[in-house]
Amino acid sequence: MFKAIFENVRQKSPLIHNITNYVTVNDCANMLLACGGSPIMADELEDAVEITAICGGLNINIGTLNRRTIPTMFAAGKRANELSHPVILDPVGAGASALRTDTALELLKKVKFAVIRGNISEIKTLALGSGTTKGVDADVADRVMEENLDGAVAFAKGFARRIGTIIAITGAIDIVTDGERAFCIRNGRPEMSAITGTGCQLSALTAAFITANPDRLLEAVAAAVCAMGLCGEIAWKRMTGLDGNSSYRNYIIDAMYRLTPAALEEGAKYEMR
Amino acid sequence: MFKAIFENVRQKSPLIHNITNYVTVNDCANMLLACGGSPIMADELEDAVEITAICGGLNINIGTLNRRTIPTMFAAGKRANELSHPVILDPVGAGASALRTDTALELLKKVKFAVIRGNISEIKTLALGSGTTKGVDADVADRVMEENLDGAVAFAKGFARRIGTIIAITGAIDIVTDGERAFCIRNGRPEMSAITGTGCQLSALTAAFITANPDRLLEAVAAAVCAMGLCGEIAWKRMTGLDGNSSYRNYIIDAMYRLTPAALEEGAKYEMR
Amino acid sequence: MFKAIFENVRQKSPLIHNITNYVTVNDCANMLLACGGSPIMADELEDAVEITAICGGLNINIGTLNRRTIPTMFAAGKRANELSHPVILDPVGAGASALRTDTALELLKKVKFAVIRGNISEIKTLALGSGTTKGVDADVADRVMEENLDGAVAFAKGFARRIGTIIAITGAIDIVTDGERAFCIRNGRPEMSAITGTGCQLSALTAAFITANPDRLLEAVAAAVCAMGLCGEIAWKRMTGLDGNSSYRNYIIDAMYRLTPAALEEGAKYEMR
Repeated sequence: MFKAIFENVRQKSPLIHNITNYVTVNDCANMLLACGGSPIMADELEDAVEITAICGGLNINIGTLNRRTIPTMFAAGKRANELSHPVILDPVGAGASALRTDTALELLKKVKFAVIRGNISEIKTLALGSGTTKGVDADVADRVMEENLDGAVAFAKGFARRIGTIIAITGAIDIVTDGERAFCIRNGRPEMSAITGTGCQLSALTAAFITANPDRLLEAVAAAVCAMGLCGEIAWKRMTGLDGNSSYRNYIIDAMYRLTPAALEEGAKYEMR
Repeated sequence: MFKAIFENVRQKSPLIHNITNYVTVNDCANMLLACGGSPIMADELEDAVEITAICGGLNINIGTLNRRTIPTMFAAGKRANELSHPVILDPVGAGASALRTDTALELLKKVKFAVIRGNISEIKTLALGSGTTKGVDADVADRVMEENLDGAVAFAKGFARRIGTIIAITGAIDIVTDGERAFCIRNGRPEMSAITGTGCQLSALTAAFITANPDRLLEAVAAAVCAMGLCGEIAWKRMTGLDGNSSYRNYIIDAMYRLTPAALEEGAKYEMR
Repeated sequence: MFKAIFENVRQKSPLIHNITNYVTVNDCANMLLACGGSPIMADELEDAVEITAICGGLNINIGTLNRRTIPTMFAAGKRANELSHPVILDPVGAGASALRTDTALELLKKVKFAVIRGNISEIKTLALGSGTTKGVDADVADRVMEENLDGAVAFAKGFARRIGTIIAITGAIDIVTDGERAFCIRNGRPEMSAITGTGCQLSALTAAFITANPDRLLEAVAAAVCAMGLCGEIAWKRMTGLDGNSSYRNYIIDAMYRLTPAALEEGAKYEMR
């Protein structure tokens, strides 16, 4: 199934509009190109509404949130909804500041998202309307592990059902659910967290996967999450004793560039819960 | 001839002021350093006018255009004109939105550009005052290929003559013309389009080449275009079966860092039309 | 001593708030992760004051200074001071424009910095209240070399004493002083200046080192400067005849990721003056 989903990405080359942070934007663009998609960045209100219309999907990332681009996120989200383009939200740092939390919660009210992808702290913040985040990384106490997986899945399903949006919680084990079914994904490497923006890259990637597979959104999100983790595994095998997080970053994007749909099908590690 | 032009870049180390997008800006800076130039980025109105004055050339790129930096582009362009510094325009995404198209057209009216570098869709938009662009990439229907090269050269010459500016249209075959003579350049690799910002990097590179060669602008632009394509070819030879677009990006900049003026002279592939 | 200092960075994993330029921000984030720290970027006034509070240290870099983020720098600096978080200033391009010079000087008045790190031109500008800078690089006439080292040390000590802040002047020879003691550091490679943002990365790194070592600030700054230079040396040994400044950038960050506290202790090259 993931094979066909990834083939659609390669064949349709979806154009993705990204309103995202300036920290990881270059890697997001190269990741989109690596998977077969095409990126465009536009964050000025007037520009973005038009750009969204020529794209197939919209990726909103609140990483370096600012007053100028917040109205752009709402307007582009609204336009994308009108055009039935899938929209993804990456609530970077939700829970770390009122501006981030409030903006993310307000976006949830005004924009219909196909997917929200974040770490467990960020998603909990959105679900509970509050929470604490140590910076933009998952709160250590709240990591999703084998021993608390069932509880995390139940939480994710409940939130997904309540807001009618696919929830992707990424961490040591990733959970992707539409409220009914949940993919528990075990691809990836812990060292990926030593690279800035692997989460942002995954959100951009997911935007391409859902845009190319509008009829199988849940599977498309799961395929993107598996693909990112699998590329992390493949790239790790290239690492020499001299390589560190900067080369690892390059190797992961390289791996996505080389990844075949068949290799994704074969390498995806997940179970349904 | 290209040998002497590139030697001037290495020897004069031109300082280039870049008002550019936040997606590819880091690669533009490293590309400028790789060729022997020196980059400075400043986009706040008050700052930019002063920074332009201490630089030798100005590179304006409308990639992530916004209301704050548009007035900066006009003011810095005006100041550079007063100082007779060469100015280059990279009209990223012209044709994709009214803001981009209108800003580019207005810049053409108010600022005297030495060079405009874009893909065929962007240049057509500026020439015709309208057009459609699929994102920031060349419209497939309008690619410059062998079978339509004569027509594209005639179009580029006409536009260059009309506005008195060197036009560089980059794609499968690149065209560089001042309205009288046209370089048709066949350096480069198609895989370069899978890297975000190779066009932006070329514009920054071109700014360095023209700033170091004020008396041979047309040849300097052609040399920069050949150099970028040649580095794409050299870098491609390094690629292993594990490398993808992210490593390719690094290798191209690396190749520019290592490129000698003699190697550019020897590797440049062009004909005059 | 540097061994224990670096061990603290690895063990405490300090969270650093960066208000920095969009040119080199991604490399700063990856450098922070490489050393064992954790980065967060926030530059909107409302957001930044809260983010600073959850961090351990603050890194202010005026690289692409603009009107929106200047008030943020003052407010975040004030908040960090209230919380006794160490704050570092990287006065990129001070001396190159009035906006940069004036903002840096005003920041010195309003915010208590633990450290200021810049090249000799930038630091002279701050010390003298004026100066000239060729872009963001050190003025050639003012390079710190063996023959003028004593004079430069005396200048740095005097400035450090006067403002009660550790001064780090980086160049061919680096000087780190609190006004009483001065580390003269000879780690590093000249080729590091062909990479955009090695200075910015060092400032981010320094923020992590001082945040993890509040009781030994001077030694922590010296350790960070030695670590950066040492990684430049280690990375240079990896360079093949095909590698250039882009791969070198990756290799330096990689080297920091792999650097052990013991290797830093052994590889640090400094004398006290």
